[in-house]
Amino acid sequence: MASAAWVGPDNAVLLTDLYQLTMMQAYWREGMTDRAVFSLFVRRLPPTRNVLIACGLADVLAYLETVRFDADSLDYLDSLGLFGRDFLDWLAAFRFTGDVHAVPEGTPIFATEPILEVEAPLPEAQFVETFIMNQIHLQTLLASKALRVVEAAEGRRVVDFGLRRMQGADAGLKSARAFYIAGVHATSNVLAGRLYGLPVTGTMAHSYVQAHRDERSAFLAFLRQYPDSVLLLDTYDTLAAVEEVIDLARELGPAFRLRGVRIDSGDLGELARIVRRRLDEAGLSQLQILVSGSLDEFAIRDLVRGGAPIDGFGVGTRMGVSADAPALDLVYKLAAYAGRGRIKTSPGKVTLPGRKQIFRQEEDGRAVRDVLALADETLPGRPLLRPVMRAGRRLPPAEEPLEAMRARAREELARLPDAVRSLDPADPPYPVELSARLRAEWEALLETVS
Amino acid sequence: MASAAWVGPDNAVLLTDLYQLTMMQAYWREGMTDRAVFSLFVRRLPPTRNVLIACGLADVLAYLETVRFDADSLDYLDSLGLFGRDFLDWLAAFRFTGDVHAVPEGTPIFATEPILEVEAPLPEAQFVETFIMNQIHLQTLLASKALRVVEAAEGRRVVDFGLRRMQGADAGLKSARAFYIAGVHATSNVLAGRLYGLPVTGTMAHSYVQAHRDERSAFLAFLRQYPDSVLLLDTYDTLAAVEEVIDLARELGPAFRLRGVRIDSGDLGELARIVRRRLDEAGLSQLQILVSGSLDEFAIRDLVRGGAPIDGFGVGTRMGVSADAPALDLVYKLAAYAGRGRIKTSPGKVTLPGRKQIFRQEEDGRAVRDVLALADETLPGRPLLRPVMRAGRRLPPAEEPLEAMRARAREELARLPDAVRSLDPADPPYPVELSARLRAEWEALLETVS
Repeated sequence: MASAAWVGPDNAVLLTDLYQLTMMQAYWREGMTDRAVFSLFVRRLPPTRNVLIACGLADVLAYLETVRFDADSLDYLDSLGLFGRDFLDWLAAFRFTGDVHAVPEGTPIFATEPILEVEAPLPEAQFVETFIMNQIHLQTLLASKALRVVEAAEGRRVVDFGLRRMQGADAGLKSARAFYIAGVHATSNVLAGRLYGLPVTGTMAHSYVQAHRDERSAFLAFLRQYPDSVLLLDTYDTLAAVEEVIDLARELGPAFRLRGVRIDSGDLGELARIVRRRLDEAGLSQLQILVSGSLDEFAIRDLVRGGAPIDGFGVGTRMGVSADAPALDLVYKLAAYAGRGRIKTSPGKVTLPGRKQIFRQEEDGRAVRDVLALADETLPGRPLLRPVMRAGRRLPPAEEPLEAMRARAREELARLPDAVRSLDPADPPYPVELSARLRAEWEALLETVS
Repeated sequence: MASAAWVGPDNAVLLTDLYQLTMMQAYWREGMTDRAVFSLFVRRLPPTRNVLIACGLADVLAYLETVRFDADSLDYLDSLGLFGRDFLDWLAAFRFTGDVHAVPEGTPIFATEPILEVEAPLPEAQFVETFIMNQIHLQTLLASKALRVVEAAEGRRVVDFGLRRMQGADAGLKSARAFYIAGVHATSNVLAGRLYGLPVTGTMAHSYVQAHRDERSAFLAFLRQYPDSVLLLDTYDTLAAVEEVIDLARELGPAFRLRGVRIDSGDLGELARIVRRRLDEAGLSQLQILVSGSLDEFAIRDLVRGGAPIDGFGVGTRMGVSADAPALDLVYKLAAYAGRGRIKTSPGKVTLPGRKQIFRQEEDGRAVRDVLALADETLPGRPLLRPVMRAGRRLPPAEEPLEAMRARAREELARLPDAVRSLDPADPPYPVELSARLRAEWEALLETVS
């Protein structure tokens, strides 16, 4: 039982909290199978986020279409002694039959705004909470972090090098997709390249240099295999290494087709300046300078604003785990049951009733506010939530290309106030208001529960 | 290409950085297939960690035993235009044939100490870096965080509720295993229960209360299904809810078998005190109080030291993503090739040569220092690194039970200085020294590369 393990489509049905299943059985026995609405939203943004990029919907919809309790899972549940045979038989035939409304992936969203809403018979809508949360949380978290890195780079190339220290294999894979939607240019992650069609890239590691007799032999050997590659300069001494590159260029003549160099430690701005100058003096101005090593959006901003001659950034762990804000205050809350709005009033954890719509209101082509309203309201502005699943089946278009999501993120962000894309806190934050009807409904419910 | 995706045993071979494959091809073409030693270690501990709990080895060994390039993966690599047909043919027959030494899972370790060392032909040892890093990083990170939470709870029950906001499905699954090894008592994660045999548990959600006509109906309905369960008090008003519990106890008489109550918001210490008093006054002293909501080791320490009458803690996101230190400075560095020690000298990123051993030296049954030495040295103290794989095959015992790892963590920690288990920085940190021979070998190599 201590062995290696994987989560996949065959066992993800049990990737849930036990209480989802016990509550599900209770609802089922009580006959509480009327339709419920759950809203998935972030209560508060982290202090270092002005906006989030909604991401992860495709994985959620695939799960909802296919989730089944197989015999092994039912046997395990049976072994817990908590579930009746009748309920387990019902689970064996379980299908998700609900509707989902969601903002398309790549949409910039703000606190309190639903990323998606599930409307389904209560036991179904309750059960799917944990998986939906886990997947939307991860991808939205990482896309939102990557957006900041991309903004800081001001058009310079950003490459994802983070796989090795991301939090597990699933994060490792899906991060690359989220990053691409947020504007990252390429990834080192080969599986992400294969499964999502992303551009994959890479340079060389210190170990390659170390394994050779000396740095010069390593460079020469690598260039023989990959003439248009990128050489890593800082295994021993960056300034000595750049001289070796210049020597090799002289020696190889027209056969020298190196694309660039990478610096991974030390004062990256200062080293980039010296390396640039030496390369230019040697007539190698076509060589690009890529830097890496503990980079985040603030380090990149400092390098860019400091005028460091850097062409691209290899960004690893800090983007890969969203190090400054490694989790979002994402919640999935009951908003209606059996046609009646539902709220909770726990301190700091208040929720809003009913199925909703977000209206993004623009003036002169720039968004000025979002209004959160009930789903049946018609207000000025563009509605952001769309139907994406009906009766457990995805609605067309089932497979939006990542390029479209990436373009959406870029275009929608360009229409938001500049302050939203800043690394510094937007002051005031982008306004999200409640419609008069939503507020009135909420206040009326407050009366009934207090 | 934008669709849902999973990583699993069938495609994990490509869960790697592109440069591992390009370097591998270069080594192979250059005939650099002599044996290499790579060390996996944490360069520096995060400021809020005095010790780490090594974790994740089982997943790594399973991967090393089974990793293969299937036809689909080879086709994808071929499509990149970087690899020759001859190399792809060689990859088709690729097997990991190396040796691995590692500290057993659950072992407390410190900065610079190898968690594992791979000794294998250079292309193999290089290639497996990314996956080994990703898996050991995740589980060691999370076990090390959980240890602090468990210590803070001072014997009170700690339950993992974090699945929904962990970074993806793989983290969601493996966290529960890592937490258990570190001393967490149970998890809400059903799949972890099934795959690892862990105790699973859970209470009820706010949505259950909200979906019912009122809180009292919800409590009554839940008790009917689960008489010995735990009721959640804070959906509307915790103090009103505890009175409802007391009323229900009166009404149900001997049929009232409730096990406890949970408080998930507000001033947990103060509410626990009031709830305890009211329950005791009502003759319900057998009811336990469980609290949850944004807990970490510091919040738990404050509650415990403040004397709050709390029996257990449900801990979610902050433990689930290791929020204060969401990544470790874990690296996998070439230490020897073809029988010669190798080092790098990049600023702040110096490495040590050769295959190693860690000797934990004790006085009067308490560890006083670790000495990092070359593998062929014999020094006082217990050696921590053991052979776990030879020629690509796991050595017995192949499947250590989680209980044994958990016991190891507990027992080994008890033999370390108390300051190591404190939430505050150990000052001085636990000493890790270099053996005279290791230091001499490193200094001699420094001469040759500078």
